[in-house]
Amino acid sequence: MEKRKAYTLGQIVRQLGGELIGDARIRIHQVAALESAQAGNISFLVQARYIAQLKNTAASAVIMGLESRDATALPRILCKNPHAYYAAVAGLLNPPAQERPGIHKSAVVDKSARVAKTAHVGPCAVIAKGARIGANCIVGAGCFVGKDSSIGADTRLYANVTIYQNCRLGDRCIVHAGVVIGADGFGIAKDGAIWKKIPQIGGVTIGDDVEVGANTTIDRGALDDTLIGNGVKLDNQIQIAHNVSIGDNTAIAACVGIAGSAKIGKNCALGGASMIYGHITIADNVSVSAGTLIMKSLEEPGTYTGVFPFSSHQRWLKNATHLRQLDELVKRVRVLESRSGKTGKEQP
Amino acid sequence: MEKRKAYTLGQIVRQLGGELIGDARIRIHQVAALESAQAGNISFLVQARYIAQLKNTAASAVIMGLESRDATALPRILCKNPHAYYAAVAGLLNPPAQERPGIHKSAVVDKSARVAKTAHVGPCAVIAKGARIGANCIVGAGCFVGKDSSIGADTRLYANVTIYQNCRLGDRCIVHAGVVIGADGFGIAKDGAIWKKIPQIGGVTIGDDVEVGANTTIDRGALDDTLIGNGVKLDNQIQIAHNVSIGDNTAIAACVGIAGSAKIGKNCALGGASMIYGHITIADNVSVSAGTLIMKSLEEPGTYTGVFPFSSHQRWLKNATHLRQLDELVKRVRVLESRSGKTGKEQP
Amino acid sequence: MEKRKAYTLGQIVRQLGGELIGDARIRIHQVAALESAQAGNISFLVQARYIAQLKNTAASAVIMGLESRDATALPRILCKNPHAYYAAVAGLLNPPAQERPGIHKSAVVDKSARVAKTAHVGPCAVIAKGARIGANCIVGAGCFVGKDSSIGADTRLYANVTIYQNCRLGDRCIVHAGVVIGADGFGIAKDGAIWKKIPQIGGVTIGDDVEVGANTTIDRGALDDTLIGNGVKLDNQIQIAHNVSIGDNTAIAACVGIAGSAKIGKNCALGGASMIYGHITIADNVSVSAGTLIMKSLEEPGTYTGVFPFSSHQRWLKNATHLRQLDELVKRVRVLESRSGKTGKEQP
Repeated sequence: MEKRKAYTLGQIVRQLGGELIGDARIRIHQVAALESAQAGNISFLVQARYIAQLKNTAASAVIMGLESRDATALPRILCKNPHAYYAAVAGLLNPPAQERPGIHKSAVVDKSARVAKTAHVGPCAVIAKGARIGANCIVGAGCFVGKDSSIGADTRLYANVTIYQNCRLGDRCIVHAGVVIGADGFGIAKDGAIWKKIPQIGGVTIGDDVEVGANTTIDRGALDDTLIGNGVKLDNQIQIAHNVSIGDNTAIAACVGIAGSAKIGKNCALGGASMIYGHITIADNVSVSAGTLIMKSLEEPGTYTGVFPFSSHQRWLKNATHLRQLDELVKRVRVLESRSGKTGKEQP
Repeated sequence: MEKRKAYTLGQIVRQLGGELIGDARIRIHQVAALESAQAGNISFLVQARYIAQLKNTAASAVIMGLESRDATALPRILCKNPHAYYAAVAGLLNPPAQERPGIHKSAVVDKSARVAKTAHVGPCAVIAKGARIGANCIVGAGCFVGKDSSIGADTRLYANVTIYQNCRLGDRCIVHAGVVIGADGFGIAKDGAIWKKIPQIGGVTIGDDVEVGANTTIDRGALDDTLIGNGVKLDNQIQIAHNVSIGDNTAIAACVGIAGSAKIGKNCALGGASMIYGHITIADNVSVSAGTLIMKSLEEPGTYTGVFPFSSHQRWLKNATHLRQLDELVKRVRVLESRSGKTGKEQP
Repeated sequence: MEKRKAYTLGQIVRQLGGELIGDARIRIHQVAALESAQAGNISFLVQARYIAQLKNTAASAVIMGLESRDATALPRILCKNPHAYYAAVAGLLNPPAQERPGIHKSAVVDKSARVAKTAHVGPCAVIAKGARIGANCIVGAGCFVGKDSSIGADTRLYANVTIYQNCRLGDRCIVHAGVVIGADGFGIAKDGAIWKKIPQIGGVTIGDDVEVGANTTIDRGALDDTLIGNGVKLDNQIQIAHNVSIGDNTAIAACVGIAGSAKIGKNCALGGASMIYGHITIADNVSVSAGTLIMKSLEEPGTYTGVFPFSSHQRWLKNATHLRQLDELVKRVRVLESRSGKTGKEQP
C-alpha cells in the first residue's frame, strides 16, 4: 500500500471553506462512518437520527451542519451542506488513481487518430481512424473508441468500454467498464412478414461532468443525436434508446430503461428500474419512484409512483384475483348505490 | 468526412420500385425528418398527423403512401409501405462501414480456426480452436469467438462481443458490443444447504438476419440448444435464458427477460422490460406491453398488459393501501349485497 | 470432436453413491432428458408427472428417487436427491474445459503481479500491479484484473470480465463474460444544482464457490466492502449496488436489482427481475417472486409477491382505470355501509 496523503483540519477548511472548531493541526488520513471511524478519520453527521453515534465515535473530527454546532465537543467543521462537504473531503483524500501518460505498446491507435500527449491509452485499447482523445484522458485496457469519435479532456474510460463511431464525450466524464455508447438504436420497419433495418445515422453527444455506470448502454440517434446533458449521473445497467434527450444534472438509478425519443428534463431523479415510454416529455424536477412505468408525459414537477405493493404470496393471490375483477366490482357497487337511492361520485 | 454517395430519384425507384412523381434527375444525399430536412434530403410521411409538416419541409423529395398522392406538390415517391421504403432508401444511402479483409496483427487466431479470406478480424480479437468465420464477416476489436463456434457469412460482430464455445450464428446477423452468447444457463440443483452446478452442455443456434442489441445475453442450453429464429430482432440488455426458443421475425424491445425453456412464437412483439416466465408457450402474433410480466402460456394472438398505472405519489399511497385490502373490500361488498337482498355476480 | 470419456454405472455409484439396480458394466457417455435420450445416455426422474416418459425412453439408465424403485425395469440408480445426483453425474461426464497453464504472449501482466504457475492467462488479458491470480485459475481472453485485486484458487473468469482494483474473489468461483466487479457505487451528493461525486473507497469481497452470470455488475463499497457470501449463485444481468451484503447460498435469478446497503440473508431465492430497495434487511430463507419490488425489510421467511396480474389489454385498461379510483371506490362502499346501518371492518 502506498502512503496516503494526509491533510490537517486547517488545510481542509482553507481549501473547502466551513468553520473549524478545534485544533487546526489535527491530521486527517481518511473519511469514515461515525460508527467505524478510527483516529485519523473524519466523519460526518447528515441526519439528526445519527446524533447518538456522535457520543461513541472514535473519529478525530466530524463534519456537521451549522445547526449542530453544540452537539459534540469533538473537533468539527461546521458548514451548510455536510453531505456535499463530506464528498469534497473524501475527494481530497482519495484522488482518482493516476495513470502514466502515453500509449501502451499493446494498444492499437490508428495513425490518423489524435491522442493528447498527456493522455493515457491502456493495454489492448483500440483507437480508430480520426478519433480524438483529449488532454489527461485515461482510456482503460481493452477499450474501443470508434471512427471520428472524440473524448474531452480529463475524461476517464475504465476497462472494456466500447464507443462507436461519431460520438462525442465532454470533459471530466467517467465511463465505467462494459459501457456501450453509440450502438444502433432499435430502428426497424415491418415489410410484409419481415423486419427491415433502418440505418441509425445520428450519433451520441454527451456533455461535461457526466458519469456513466457499468454496463449501461446509450444508443446512437436514428437521424439526429442522442443527447446527455452536463452533470448527468447514470448508474449501472441503464438503457437509453435512440434520440433520448436528458437534461442537465438529472440523476438516474440502476436498471432504468428510457425508450426512444423520450425527453427527460433537468434535475430529474429516476428511481431504480423505472421505465419511461418513448416519445414522451418529462418536465424538469420530476422524481419517478423505483419500479414505476411512466406511460405519458409529465408536465408538472413532483413525485410519481406506480408499483404493486408486495405482500405474502397467499395474500397477493387473493388480491390479484380481485384486481382482475375490479371492473366487475365497480359495477356491483353501482348496482348497490342505485338500489340505495343515491349514486356515489366517481372522479374522472 | 468522406464524400457521401448520392442517388438520383430515378436511380432510387429503379432499384427499389415505387412511382416517382417529379424530376428523376434530382440528387438525394441523405434521409431526414420532414422538419429538419434540407436540400438534397429525402423525407417520408408515414402518419397522416404529420401532413402539416409537408408544407414547410425543405426536403427535395418525400416518400409517401399511395393514398397521399396529392398531398404535396413536392417531388415524391409513392409506394405501399412508406416506412419500409424509407428504411430501404436509408440503407442505400448509408451502407454499413466496410472493413478491410484480413486478420489484424494484434488478433490471436488459433491455427485450427477457419477464417474466410474475405473476413475482417479486428485488433485484439481472439478466435479459438476450430471456430469458423464466414465470408465477408467483420469481427470487431476485442471480440472473443469460442471453440468450435461458427459465424455465418456477412455477419458483423461489433467490438467486445463474447461468443462461447459451440455456438452457431447464421448469415447477415448484426451483433452489437458487449453481447454475450453462450454463457452457462442458470442451472443449479439444491443439495442440502448448497447449490450444485448443472453443466450446461447445449449450445446456442441463431438463424439468419438476426440483430442482437448491445449488452444482451443469450445463454447456452442445458441439454439442447437455445434457439433464435430467422429475422429475430433483439434490442439492448435483453436476457434470454437457457433453452428459450424464439420464432422467426419476433421483435423484442430493450430490458426484456425471458426465463428458461420459454417458447416464444413467430411475429411476436415484446415491449420493453416485459418479463416472460420459464416453461411457458407464447403463441404466434402475440404482443406483450412494456413492463408486463407474463406468468402463463398465451394461446391466442392479441395484446396483453399488466402494469400498475402510475399517479402522483400521494394518490398512489392511498390506492396501494386499499389494494392490499382488496380481498376485504370484496367481502364488504358481498355483505352489502346480501343485506340488499340480491347478490352481484362475480365472473370467474 | 474429442472422444468423450465414458463411465460405467458401477464407476458412477462408487464415486457418487446411490443404489444401483442393473448391470454395473453399462457404459454412460452423456446425460439427456428422458424424451431425447439415446443409448449410452443416463436420464433422470425428478417429478412424478414425468413418469409416463419412462416407458418410451431410450436411455441406458435412469436416476430416480428411492420411492420410485419399481417404476421401471431399466437399469437405475436410486438416491435421495435425483436432481442433485444428476448434477453430479453431468459434472463427471462434462468437466469444465481446461486451459494450458501459462500466460499468453499477448497478455499484459504487470511485473509486480503474482500469477500462480498453474494458472492460465488468456490472450489480451491484462493483470495490473500487485494483483494475485491463484492456483489453477483461468483468466479468459480480454479480461482485466485491477491493482491489488486477488483471485482465489480454481476460479475461472470467462472472456472480457472486468475486475477493478482492491477486489477479492474466493476459490472455485465462476465469473461469466461481461461481468464488472468493483465499479464505483452510485454515490453522489447534491451541492446546489449539481451533483458531487463521493469517492467509493470500499472494495468487493466475494466468497468461495460463487457463480456470477454474464453482464452482471457488483459495485464496490462506499466505505466498507460489498459482500457476497459463499455459495451464492447469481444469474445474468443482475445489479448489486454498493455495500450490499448477500448471505451464503442465496440464489438470484436474472435481471434483479439490489439497491445500496441492502442486506440479503442466507438461503434466499430472488425471482427474475425482482427489485430490492436500499438500506433494508431480508431475513434468511425468504423467497421473492419474479417482478416483485420489495420496499421494506422482511423479517420472516416466506414467499412475497407484488405483481400486477396481466390480462388482455382491453380488460387491463378497464381495471387500471378503476385502480386509479380505488380510494374513491372504498369511500363509496363506506357510504353504502353507513346507509346500510353497519360498517364493514377494514383491516389495518
